[in-house]
Amino acid sequence: MTDTSQLAADGRLRHLITLDGLPRARIESLLDDAARLRAHWHGQRALPPLLAGRSVVNLFFEASTRTRTSFDLAARRLGALVVNFDIASSSTSKGETLQDTLATLEAMDADAFVVRHKENGTPALLAGHCRQAAILNAGDGNHAHPTQGLLDLLTIRDRKGRIDGLQVVICGDIRHSRVARSDVHGLRALGAAAIRLCGPAELLPDADEFSGCSIDDDFDAALAGADVVIMLRIQHERLERATRLDSQSYHVRYGLTPQRLACARADALVMHPGPINRGVEIASSVADGVQSAILDQVANGVFVRMAALAQLLGR
Amino acid sequence: MTDTSQLAADGRLRHLITLDGLPRARIESLLDDAARLRAHWHGQRALPPLLAGRSVVNLFFEASTRTRTSFDLAARRLGALVVNFDIASSSTSKGETLQDTLATLEAMDADAFVVRHKENGTPALLAGHCRQAAILNAGDGNHAHPTQGLLDLLTIRDRKGRIDGLQVVICGDIRHSRVARSDVHGLRALGAAAIRLCGPAELLPDADEFSGCSIDDDFDAALAGADVVIMLRIQHERLERATRLDSQSYHVRYGLTPQRLACARADALVMHPGPINRGVEIASSVADGVQSAILDQVANGVFVRMAALAQLLGR
Amino acid sequence: MTDTSQLAADGRLRHLITLDGLPRARIESLLDDAARLRAHWHGQRALPPLLAGRSVVNLFFEASTRTRTSFDLAARRLGALVVNFDIASSSTSKGETLQDTLATLEAMDADAFVVRHKENGTPALLAGHCRQAAILNAGDGNHAHPTQGLLDLLTIRDRKGRIDGLQVVICGDIRHSRVARSDVHGLRALGAAAIRLCGPAELLPDADEFSGCSIDDDFDAALAGADVVIMLRIQHERLERATRLDSQSYHVRYGLTPQRLACARADALVMHPGPINRGVEIASSVADGVQSAILDQVANGVFVRMAALAQLLGR
Repeated sequence: MTDTSQLAADGRLRHLITLDGLPRARIESLLDDAARLRAHWHGQRALPPLLAGRSVVNLFFEASTRTRTSFDLAARRLGALVVNFDIASSSTSKGETLQDTLATLEAMDADAFVVRHKENGTPALLAGHCRQAAILNAGDGNHAHPTQGLLDLLTIRDRKGRIDGLQVVICGDIRHSRVARSDVHGLRALGAAAIRLCGPAELLPDADEFSGCSIDDDFDAALAGADVVIMLRIQHERLERATRLDSQSYHVRYGLTPQRLACARADALVMHPGPINRGVEIASSVADGVQSAILDQVANGVFVRMAALAQLLGR
Repeated sequence: MTDTSQLAADGRLRHLITLDGLPRARIESLLDDAARLRAHWHGQRALPPLLAGRSVVNLFFEASTRTRTSFDLAARRLGALVVNFDIASSSTSKGETLQDTLATLEAMDADAFVVRHKENGTPALLAGHCRQAAILNAGDGNHAHPTQGLLDLLTIRDRKGRIDGLQVVICGDIRHSRVARSDVHGLRALGAAAIRLCGPAELLPDADEFSGCSIDDDFDAALAGADVVIMLRIQHERLERATRLDSQSYHVRYGLTPQRLACARADALVMHPGPINRGVEIASSVADGVQSAILDQVANGVFVRMAALAQLLGR
Repeated sequence: MTDTSQLAADGRLRHLITLDGLPRARIESLLDDAARLRAHWHGQRALPPLLAGRSVVNLFFEASTRTRTSFDLAARRLGALVVNFDIASSSTSKGETLQDTLATLEAMDADAFVVRHKENGTPALLAGHCRQAAILNAGDGNHAHPTQGLLDLLTIRDRKGRIDGLQVVICGDIRHSRVARSDVHGLRALGAAAIRLCGPAELLPDADEFSGCSIDDDFDAALAGADVVIMLRIQHERLERATRLDSQSYHVRYGLTPQRLACARADALVMHPGPINRGVEIASSVADGVQSAILDQVANGVFVRMAALAQLLGR
């Protein structure tokens, strides 16, 4: 889905729903802003109050303490008020439509909604109902997770100096992963040379969804020459339901071990959106090793979320 | 219950428990302050830090995300710290008396408690135990919901230019409604010409409680000549227990439809405290129509809560 | 356990895990800072933003609304951002190791973690894994609760003018109490003349753990000549499981009644960490009487937590 409605008529960012279709210049401007905010923060442990007077509402219909905390810190460090809207005890759970909840909170001058939902398309749907507020997608179904895509791009650009021309492997449950989709959209926009999607056949996507990517169930073959290896979190229930693999067998075939990592380029970067399953999709020594950028990803997450909020709400 | 203990000896607002017995000048001063804060906010998206250094504790014994968020934003936009005290995991649920919880939080220099409780009188009871802190009633049983009353008054005054002389209909479960009670207290204090209470006989109040109001189960008759129509949220369980009506039959007799609204004055204002049950007490086209002030009510809620907090805590 | 790892090489406070082994000068400096912050706050209802730009994460694995609120207000009144990390819905509950959760939050530039956990040693364990962040123990098992110890010391010093030479009785479930342990460590460091531990035999500690304290199951005897009486909260389940006493019998033998308090010095101070069980370990008239410092303890709790955070994080 190419979604051009994310941009206002003047080209300004209106919502951030997906990286799919977002112009390369816009993505690079978000990464540049994030890097600039990061440099400022590291120098002074203080930031300009770009969001002073702004109110950001976290609407998390799926629990995610890590991602919510990252958005929370991003917004508040720029001076915004953050409301964590508790879905479980809200009128939404008592039969009020989600659209009425949104209108109510917008009437209280909420400026942005950070939305996570298990259904594909909920953030885009809400964006269609906002009068002025911005929607920032924090993950919907297996559709998109644009700030995860941005933080992965920033991490790769930092460590490799560029995205152009890189060979990237993404391994795991590609079929159900919004992270994989947003990574692919971002990597393609910024000129990655090759993207290889890898995992058990049952967890691979339909070939026509990922045009320009190679799809393979042989992880060792996929790793040859890779500059970047992005491992996805495996869900135990889905693994056992969809494949005949248990965690141990999955580790043998798709776990990133030191031996297997040696198939990639010697300076290959190891990434994972977290939380990691040690000893399942990734060996502890690799997760904690010198090639791992996993904690850099977490750190960059706060800054790309700042950049997105500042572009959406800044004056 | 006329509660004069809400005012300090010097006439200053000490607690806000109910609009019943509150002098007209005090009510108007709250509305004026709310309008002034609103104008300031709309002009600058910033407010003077009237509550800087103040700590407000939300004590919600009934879940209400909308109302709590409104109080939360009101307090924080004026610079207060807000603590959402989680009743479920508090010592109160482990046998500590409510009064000890209050004393403990007051010892931590909490300046105000925003209290919602299913029992009538809990906020007044707590007010009797405060050493210095202020109690702000956010709804107790079917007794009072003074900030809802104030926001309704402000909304009417904005759109009609006055309260004096207006004809107001309130329709729904009057018997169990704290919103109806606070609206009636406010409307009477500010000179409404007629207040007509309407609903199924089983949900109408005792006549002697609402002196000066007419009480009727015929909604169409009540609407004739109305300047303002306030619809109340119906609770499905109570409706079916108390009356022989299901949602559909209720809509036929007491739902505010475009046809029925035409019985009121052509410029009649439509109001509802939310969350609305679309197609039950109000038709969607009316809720979203040009006569509806429902989202104005929500917006004004934040400003009347600011005004109340500033009068209670301002220096 | 003497834990010297709480201090950095330059003598600065690096973590606050226990009062055991903390130098007397360090404890007194924390009390002095707390008193100074308190005087400033009482004078101006404002404090210097010692923690501006700092982020404090509350990691409460045991629910404790009172203590968490105290830490929350302490940190925010000094200008910190506070994140209440919801354990129940976090990745930690989905199998991520606690250490990975800590590393993730530290990567987001969390500066301090306030940790409460039912297992002894969890805060010290986490301290061993922090790269730069500070750990502040808010209570672990029956091991330590250092800020409770500090607030008790400050309260005694305020009311008695000194700790040196005082006779202190601590009564209740000493065996399972982290409060008793931290009080003993602090009182010994500051020169208390005698500490008498008292309670039913089944709830008394091993003699060798509390060297220098007397241990006795006769409360009346212990009270003779006491300057300070610290009553501990009794847990009903543990009481009935460990002893043959019900709440009523416990009150008869170990409840602090006016009659019993008369055995202590006439100006003896009555303390309790709260929440109190009225009529069980303490009679209401004693808890609310002129000798009670219970609400002073609560008030001082906020200021010693400010002092600890400022020493750990201040620049």
